[in-house]
Amino acid sequence: MTPEQLGFVVEQTLQAGALDVYFTNIMMKKNRPAVLLTVLCDRNDKKKLSQLILKNTSTFGIRYTEMKREILERKLIEINTEFGAVKCKLGILDGITMKCSPEYEDCKSIAMTTGLSIIEIYNIVISKYMEN
Amino acid sequence: MTPEQLGFVVEQTLQAGALDVYFTNIMMKKNRPAVLLTVLCDRNDKKKLSQLILKNTSTFGIRYTEMKREILERKLIEINTEFGAVKCKLGILDGITMKCSPEYEDCKSIAMTTGLSIIEIYNIVISKYMEN
Amino acid sequence: MTPEQLGFVVEQTLQAGALDVYFTNIMMKKNRPAVLLTVLCDRNDKKKLSQLILKNTSTFGIRYTEMKREILERKLIEINTEFGAVKCKLGILDGITMKCSPEYEDCKSIAMTTGLSIIEIYNIVISKYMEN
Amino acid sequence: MTPEQLGFVVEQTLQAGALDVYFTNIMMKKNRPAVLLTVLCDRNDKKKLSQLILKNTSTFGIRYTEMKREILERKLIEINTEFGAVKCKLGILDGITMKCSPEYEDCKSIAMTTGLSIIEIYNIVISKYMEN
Amino acid sequence: MTPEQLGFVVEQTLQAGALDVYFTNIMMKKNRPAVLLTVLCDRNDKKKLSQLILKNTSTFGIRYTEMKREILERKLIEINTEFGAVKCKLGILDGITMKCSPEYEDCKSIAMTTGLSIIEIYNIVISKYMEN
Amino acid sequence: MTPEQLGFVVEQTLQAGALDVYFTNIMMKKNRPAVLLTVLCDRNDKKKLSQLILKNTSTFGIRYTEMKREILERKLIEINTEFGAVKCKLGILDGITMKCSPEYEDCKSIAMTTGLSIIEIYNIVISKYMEN
Repeated sequence: MTPEQLGFVVEQTLQAGALDVYFTNIMMKKNRPAVLLTVLCDRNDKKKLSQLILKNTSTFGIRYTEMKREILERKLIEINTEFGAVKCKLGILDGITMKCSPEYEDCKSIAMTTGLSIIEIYNIVISKYMEN
Repeated sequence: MTPEQLGFVVEQTLQAGALDVYFTNIMMKKNRPAVLLTVLCDRNDKKKLSQLILKNTSTFGIRYTEMKREILERKLIEINTEFGAVKCKLGILDGITMKCSPEYEDCKSIAMTTGLSIIEIYNIVISKYMEN
Repeated sequence: MTPEQLGFVVEQTLQAGALDVYFTNIMMKKNRPAVLLTVLCDRNDKKKLSQLILKNTSTFGIRYTEMKREILERKLIEINTEFGAVKCKLGILDGITMKCSPEYEDCKSIAMTTGLSIIEIYNIVISKYMEN
Repeated sequence: MTPEQLGFVVEQTLQAGALDVYFTNIMMKKNRPAVLLTVLCDRNDKKKLSQLILKNTSTFGIRYTEMKREILERKLIEINTEFGAVKCKLGILDGITMKCSPEYEDCKSIAMTTGLSIIEIYNIVISKYMEN
Repeated sequence: MTPEQLGFVVEQTLQAGALDVYFTNIMMKKNRPAVLLTVLCDRNDKKKLSQLILKNTSTFGIRYTEMKREILERKLIEINTEFGAVKCKLGILDGITMKCSPEYEDCKSIAMTTGLSIIEIYNIVISKYMEN
Repeated sequence: MTPEQLGFVVEQTLQAGALDVYFTNIMMKKNRPAVLLTVLCDRNDKKKLSQLILKNTSTFGIRYTEMKREILERKLIEINTEFGAVKCKLGILDGITMKCSPEYEDCKSIAMTTGLSIIEIYNIVISKYMEN
């Protein structure tokens, strides 16, 4: 497979409902650098996704196992900045807010409009969040 | 920097004229996994790109050197398949065509229309190319 | 362990019946770059392989788990080219041929005899396969 | 998270009782280089460690599974060299000593005192061990 | 070399004046996973550092080249938080402050005293910085 | 290119006189995991090797630069063990022997004959070397 074809599989699996998709570089026998594709999905999407992978990659087999998850409760808020509102995802554990993650697309569009760096936009959002 | 911010820098540098951009994973002192950003550009774009990187990443410094290039002569052709035309990039050395690379976006759009895998589309294009 | 010794373990585990073997680079505590050895085998070979690994690597312990597999049905065919026959592995899902993988050793030996690149040989084989 | 923050998580998880901790570089969707944190611990420490990770990293979720282990029996010995004693960890399988691993901190302190390279110190220790 | 020995070389090169040191994972011939050590130093330290590396690693040779650098002007400031002062490194380009990087050790020690996560401490510092 | 084709390029470049060849994993734009091929050669072999790479890989261009080298003086010796002689490469700096590297193929063949692990064979050889 070409790198482009690998990139396409990422898009396809996400569209088909994968929760997460990533590549890890591995070294196989006989000097062969390869990539390992990891796809996380709900048990119900397993069949659909394994068929998609068997069809769209060069692999002849898939290995899978069940994992459990422990996730933060998520809550979407909006934070107002001088450049407009930015959606943020809060992560909550046992009622306590553990983290605040500004939405990338909102920050990116402000960065592109204002010419400020995206890091600066994140900092502005985080500061507004910390003030409250 | 977050992974999203790193992804944004790739877009920005390419838009600003970088010839190629890629990340390499490195391990720094004190258990610190980091990524090395490599940007290739014409000498004339050097100043613009280094300012862009210094502004948009968390780095405090950039290292650079001059490299020479040896490239294949490129020629764009179109190959007709039963699903439509596909642009291909030929790579030519000393007048001899060394390789034929089907354009990803063309193959992807046929794959999405037909439901065939993108690997199959590449194979169809390559077969047509080999026939001639 | 030296890189050579790591390479030797790959040979040994494959000879002892491992289905697949690969290395992944990891970063351990205290600035220590290391490699993770992953060995896949049938349940019945587990004891033999874990002893082989404990003996031939620097590790003091092995972790293992059971995985399920979903594999394409495989069928070997021969494809005739102007340079001789090339064995190919077909991957079949629910009666439909999903992919055709030319045998590396056959392609390599044609590449070495003809002076053509191995990519070209693959393309020739794939073209012949697509014709039918 | 910054590389420094990632380094700090390694320290914290080890202090909280993790058996092993390491990073693997992965590539996520949309050009995002990321690191995967793997933490191994006893089942009883699972809750404490997952809370620590959810609090101290940027993640919104953790995936986990149970693994079995096969480990060498360990025995600590001391090997006397001309530069002082060095602790060594022996790895034993079915009563047979499979390997001898000189303690890093002991070797390092001899290397720093003597000005010899740490590789040389390991060699000296291994030679003494092999003599017996 | 063992991973521990590699970790030790990082310490040694930094102590000997290296400006930066990092590892990159590479794949050599014959299934050999290896690490590439990169050391950056002033031209005057070149001889000392190359001897140190030739002595303390398993390599039989070093390759080197000269690179130019473009760096931000740095300025150290102190930012006062409710948990004490935190040193920050400012990065300045053409008189404009491009970024503010809180000192890791200061943040870490506040994180350890307060029980807050180190990410939270960074956020607090950045917020105070943005206020001004 | 398939992983097998990448492995073949390693063989070809070494046969054509490359001093060293290795792969580094990189992440290119648009979710594309790729491998960077690095080939080191004498200036005189540059043309031959760049043509070989342009022909046998999917690349459309090569970048190159000149590097200097600093290498240990090498001397081949033989070390006698109870299982036969093992060739060793000594690395010498300013007349001082810095390291002794047992030849992999010799150690491997003893490991295969005796059933001992290859690590043990290295240790036996190093011990004999240290005795003298």
